[in-house]
Amino acid sequence: MLVQKYKDMLSGRSVIRQLAEFAAARGREIGYEKVFDYSLGNPSVPVPQDFTNEMVKMLTSQDSVELHGYSPNLGITSVREAIAASLEKRFGLPYRKEHIFMASGAAGALAHAFRLVTEPGDEILTFAPFFPEYHPYVDLTGAVLKVVPPDTENFQINFEAFEEMLTEKVMAVLINTPNNPSGVVYSAETLRKMADILNQKSIQYGHEIYLISDEPYREIVFEGVDAPCVSQFYDNTIMCYSFSKSLSLPGERIGYVAVNPACKDAEIMVNMCVQISRGIGHNCPPSIIQLAVSKVLDRTSDLKVYETNMNILYEELMDLGFTCVKPGGTFYIFPKALEEDAKVFCEKALKYDLVLVPGDTFGAPGFFRMAYCIDTEKVKRSLPALRKFVQETYR
Amino acid sequence: MLVQKYKDMLSGRSVIRQLAEFAAARGREIGYEKVFDYSLGNPSVPVPQDFTNEMVKMLTSQDSVELHGYSPNLGITSVREAIAASLEKRFGLPYRKEHIFMASGAAGALAHAFRLVTEPGDEILTFAPFFPEYHPYVDLTGAVLKVVPPDTENFQINFEAFEEMLTEKVMAVLINTPNNPSGVVYSAETLRKMADILNQKSIQYGHEIYLISDEPYREIVFEGVDAPCVSQFYDNTIMCYSFSKSLSLPGERIGYVAVNPACKDAEIMVNMCVQISRGIGHNCPPSIIQLAVSKVLDRTSDLKVYETNMNILYEELMDLGFTCVKPGGTFYIFPKALEEDAKVFCEKALKYDLVLVPGDTFGAPGFFRMAYCIDTEKVKRSLPALRKFVQETYR
Repeated sequence: MLVQKYKDMLSGRSVIRQLAEFAAARGREIGYEKVFDYSLGNPSVPVPQDFTNEMVKMLTSQDSVELHGYSPNLGITSVREAIAASLEKRFGLPYRKEHIFMASGAAGALAHAFRLVTEPGDEILTFAPFFPEYHPYVDLTGAVLKVVPPDTENFQINFEAFEEMLTEKVMAVLINTPNNPSGVVYSAETLRKMADILNQKSIQYGHEIYLISDEPYREIVFEGVDAPCVSQFYDNTIMCYSFSKSLSLPGERIGYVAVNPACKDAEIMVNMCVQISRGIGHNCPPSIIQLAVSKVLDRTSDLKVYETNMNILYEELMDLGFTCVKPGGTFYIFPKALEEDAKVFCEKALKYDLVLVPGDTFGAPGFFRMAYCIDTEKVKRSLPALRKFVQETYR
Repeated sequence: MLVQKYKDMLSGRSVIRQLAEFAAARGREIGYEKVFDYSLGNPSVPVPQDFTNEMVKMLTSQDSVELHGYSPNLGITSVREAIAASLEKRFGLPYRKEHIFMASGAAGALAHAFRLVTEPGDEILTFAPFFPEYHPYVDLTGAVLKVVPPDTENFQINFEAFEEMLTEKVMAVLINTPNNPSGVVYSAETLRKMADILNQKSIQYGHEIYLISDEPYREIVFEGVDAPCVSQFYDNTIMCYSFSKSLSLPGERIGYVAVNPACKDAEIMVNMCVQISRGIGHNCPPSIIQLAVSKVLDRTSDLKVYETNMNILYEELMDLGFTCVKPGGTFYIFPKALEEDAKVFCEKALKYDLVLVPGDTFGAPGFFRMAYCIDTEKVKRSLPALRKFVQETYR
């Protein structure tokens, strides 16, 4: 018999995916250039040329048996060493290869982190607005994801609600800064206050509360914005990183877990990740991709376009009278809808071929997300449609 | 707190890995060319040049945003279509893309298959000798792997024991043909008899019993050997395939699940795989590797060397008086040790720098495995050592 819980999931379709499919269908109908698809968070800028060059160089000059061979389960040693050195240089924490476990993107890294520190029934707290895939990621481990309601003023942390929900059953807290969908970067003040609470509650409850820091947008931070390193604030931090956004290669599935060197049993944790892998069908991330990213660790794609797009959109949204926290990074913006039900608001926008995602999906009803990882030219062309939609519908 | 079950696994070290580490250390000491390392099943022949050419072509000519973008969760549509067409042509079953789910190697494919058809507490039967990683693969899902003792005469199936163990709790049967470690290929007679029993018991128990067919060695079959397609014998078959061995790229993590078109709810099963992925941190296999293998589906590496090596070893083993079933494929051979305890036998062989793996690990005590995916020249050089070991120790 097929397992019912997965069968049941088939009916619950992702809102984002439905909207993306609508955009694709509409594009086939009227031409893709006329559909303003702000639904999907897919990088829109090329991979750095150095990455491609490194790939070609390896393919054309290296022994293929060695190149495409199994990597050790922890990841290729030289790659882990290079990542540790890069993190140490950048953040001043004494990372060594013993703290690094290579994973298949952030999804793969998170799958290991959750299993490291929670048993079925344990709770993980996260903060709205949040990436909706966290639910299946956590729920299917048997742990329970609880969502702290948003601080809608600035999308930092609602500390009152957090302290209330941080019970003895909570084994981990999951954060995502710079944040999908708000684009907001947690301030040093926010991280310090959160760390204080976690330290205090860990002592009170007599067990560690781990901080799982999901950082795929770490490299997309806008000018003048201070994006503090989460691991500097709290010892028991498990960083989950992905190269998907920084190098524009989401399809190649490459990222890592970096356990804070100050974390209790840090080296054991990395070896435990190997055991976790055996249970979830992970073996190693693709060898050639591991090697290629290790050569361009301190490079990124040309990410400027995201800031350009954000500024254009933010200015227009302000001008149209929207309430909106200005993003500090990512390629998302998360304004307040012009009517209470953001689902209705986004539904109405579709008539103007504007594909926006209601905030309900992200645990913040009344808001909507725009993923502006599209051409600047298209962002500009979308402004009249946005203006027309607002003026015809809400004036 | 760190999760105890993974912590506990840290002390249980893999025998194969320990032996491989011994071989590596000994190699550093006396020179690698002097160590006859038969421990690891890693391909030793180059990837087909066409694969490399396709990779380079894509990297140098295709838009990188598209090339390295997310693949759909099921896998890239054109890749699934190509695989379905290739399977249909080859095995005569009406495969369509709706039956194909792209996975990260056989480990990834199996992780999905087990979760499709078993809940915690359900049983999966497999047959000794068997790939020891099946234990963590299954055990960590919460299902229970039970091992049917071997038919040591020919390493086909011990049907008496099988029928006895095939209780109502068994939801799936897991087979691996051509087999690691025996090198044996299940005959049509074996597969037919097994299918008859599964059909009969499915009716008797009122639930499907799925056959999970792990086929990474499908393309390594020796001259004159008939290697029947498992899916042709039993409707409810879930094929788990990996390109690791056929194309010599185990590190690039590429394979697939192919649900038999005759399987009840085949299309639903493939969509359920996507839901399973969300819980285990899989997203899609590397995009560029999916595309590259789809261009060389009907090619393999030059696999002849494995047969050459097998014949040399088999002849020598026979000449030395070993009892041994002649392999029909793979790059393994599984002779009977010359004393009751194969662990002691393999321990003694180490003194001659022969690295052999005791069969206890594979559920068949008293036998030992040799993985002859090494240079033929080295196989030949190992023969005097093997002869010396046997003559000095057992004459």
